[in-house]
Amino acid sequence: MASEKYVKSMQEMRTHFGDAADNWIKAIHDIYPEFAKVNVEFPFGDLYRRDVVDDKTRELCPVAALTVQGFALPEQKVHVMGALNTGSSKAEIIEIITQMIACCGFPAATNTLHAAKEVFDQIESTESEN
Amino acid sequence: MASEKYVKSMQEMRTHFGDAADNWIKAIHDIYPEFAKVNVEFPFGDLYRRDVVDDKTRELCPVAALTVQGFALPEQKVHVMGALNTGSSKAEIIEIITQMIACCGFPAATNTLHAAKEVFDQIESTESEN
Amino acid sequence: MASEKYVKSMQEMRTHFGDAADNWIKAIHDIYPEFAKVNVEFPFGDLYRRDVVDDKTRELCPVAALTVQGFALPEQKVHVMGALNTGSSKAEIIEIITQMIACCGFPAATNTLHAAKEVFDQIESTESEN
Amino acid sequence: MASEKYVKSMQEMRTHFGDAADNWIKAIHDIYPEFAKVNVEFPFGDLYRRDVVDDKTRELCPVAALTVQGFALPEQKVHVMGALNTGSSKAEIIEIITQMIACCGFPAATNTLHAAKEVFDQIESTESEN
Amino acid sequence: MASEKYVKSMQEMRTHFGDAADNWIKAIHDIYPEFAKVNVEFPFGDLYRRDVVDDKTRELCPVAALTVQGFALPEQKVHVMGALNTGSSKAEIIEIITQMIACCGFPAATNTLHAAKEVFDQIESTESEN
Amino acid sequence: MASEKYVKSMQEMRTHFGDAADNWIKAIHDIYPEFAKVNVEFPFGDLYRRDVVDDKTRELCPVAALTVQGFALPEQKVHVMGALNTGSSKAEIIEIITQMIACCGFPAATNTLHAAKEVFDQIESTESEN
Repeated sequence: MASEKYVKSMQEMRTHFGDAADNWIKAIHDIYPEFAKVNVEFPFGDLYRRDVVDDKTRELCPVAALTVQGFALPEQKVHVMGALNTGSSKAEIIEIITQMIACCGFPAATNTLHAAKEVFDQIESTESEN
Repeated sequence: MASEKYVKSMQEMRTHFGDAADNWIKAIHDIYPEFAKVNVEFPFGDLYRRDVVDDKTRELCPVAALTVQGFALPEQKVHVMGALNTGSSKAEIIEIITQMIACCGFPAATNTLHAAKEVFDQIESTESEN
Repeated sequence: MASEKYVKSMQEMRTHFGDAADNWIKAIHDIYPEFAKVNVEFPFGDLYRRDVVDDKTRELCPVAALTVQGFALPEQKVHVMGALNTGSSKAEIIEIITQMIACCGFPAATNTLHAAKEVFDQIESTESEN
Repeated sequence: MASEKYVKSMQEMRTHFGDAADNWIKAIHDIYPEFAKVNVEFPFGDLYRRDVVDDKTRELCPVAALTVQGFALPEQKVHVMGALNTGSSKAEIIEIITQMIACCGFPAATNTLHAAKEVFDQIESTESEN
Repeated sequence: MASEKYVKSMQEMRTHFGDAADNWIKAIHDIYPEFAKVNVEFPFGDLYRRDVVDDKTRELCPVAALTVQGFALPEQKVHVMGALNTGSSKAEIIEIITQMIACCGFPAATNTLHAAKEVFDQIESTESEN
Repeated sequence: MASEKYVKSMQEMRTHFGDAADNWIKAIHDIYPEFAKVNVEFPFGDLYRRDVVDDKTRELCPVAALTVQGFALPEQKVHVMGALNTGSSKAEIIEIITQMIACCGFPAATNTLHAAKEVFDQIESTESEN
């Protein structure tokens, strides 16, 4: 049975990523429940519990960070979704990705720009279905 | 003679980094004026000229990004200064560095935490001299 | 309307990448015109305008650099094309990728070798169609 | 004709990766025989010939290293296979990947966890066919 | 007051790094207690509590991983100490660093080799003082 | 006793780096002779023995690659020396470092620019002593 910490952290994770949170963690849980447990509890139970920084900033910063990291496109898509869910506009997200060119050059930023576009398209296509 | 674009960009750079902007660029200019030129004009003339994102966010995002990058400590110190100058508190800066553990692990985040501390100490020591 | 700088930079970009230049930039422009603008003007208008280094070297160096970077395979393919277009032979390109093993180990170099092969195959298949 | 060093190194490589060794090297050889030659002879003839470390550790360490590297998923799959072939259990492999979160954060570790799962699934599906 | 989890995790951390654990965490605690807290509790309370992998392997794998990461030399020194404390010999440590050349090339491995030597020298100098 | 391959490779290494080659390898040999052996024989005996690419290009490409890698400044200094020794001018070297901004952003390129300057200064100071 899930601990209280896990349940609360999972709720916090859902406020960032919506349904994507559950799908993401389920896929990890199927491989290794211990990885899933820390993936929920550590960021969302230990790191994000302080009010020092608002959630919008908390989700825009990983978009910047994963842009620079270059290889983390599946995770970047989740954070782009997270940025949209916590109050960033599409315009702000692609502006921050563009700004990152100064930190990481064009290759990493370009890969991220296309990944962000995929998220935007997917949302639009889901919305137009409803 | 410096172009109008360069002069304006340099002014923008100073609003981020204060006097550190001139020292930083002078050291680069002594090696290669062409590098200094693009270092001033590209980020501060081309990338930062849009109002889509406010300056506080513009400077907190590089702090997050360079934390993850791991090796860019001299540049990180300039951006920590930039974050302070554009409205972030010390508490916000170290909170974002701490949050980045989830993106990049402890080694990169720890190096950055110590670099941020050096900036804070240096400011304090300068202030107490006055 | 495109500025003179943009038009000239785009012409320079085409001498490197051929038609791939237009396709690459169009895809970016559809997401964020500001990103496309700096992607054309900064490297090809600001960085590549000096004759200090010839174009062959200018395109072989990014092949080496992106090999080491490891994650930038879509951009690497464009630069492999650029290296071919500016006078490098296939033999020189895969020799430089092989040399990079000393700088970055086998994983990054292997990924790049396969990416280069895809570019060579694509060119051959295009040529044999004509 | 293959040198004695190449033949012996290839045998060593097969004790790590099984048939995957031949497929991996053949694909590289088709592009550049010189790359294939050093890929066989350098790690398996020069680096792995000392008994200081046992083969199980020799294959678990690259799993840890490529997890942190983040972008080397095709190579990681070969090393996961190598870890299984040299005496590591699936449980040990995913535990080490999970431990690496502390070194590299969640994005890199998550990508690797899914890559390991693909190797496990592929082995299971091959076994159930027989 | 420190929680039970913190106290137990700190004890576990000491079995890896000896007195270096307390110095390391104290320096971080002076900057941000929240960072120190997760640095103790997450790896040593959450990640390392399972017996799937023995402590010797748990400490040799980060040596491999941080070798590849390239920039994390201060943390690498702590892990080299940790590897010695959990049963690895100097010979095993430098052999693993040498093996990593295949994963990351010479630059990252060379930096780490010198960092390991500094740890060995420091231990020897401390021992010869006693 | 050194093998014929080692002796020849060491001679090749000296044509790149001059006396710095011997100092570099001696420092490594004092820690682990096996590392020194492969550091000499693998790049300079196995990788650099083909005439496909000239030595000037062979040394300018690592300068580009290590610029992007960001953390490899001690090795970068040796390659800057190597580039000078194999026919590149200071102007070409800093132009290539500047071009790399497009691949890796300002932080990595700036660190490298300063490292190159240190090499130039050191050479000048040695020359003015004679």
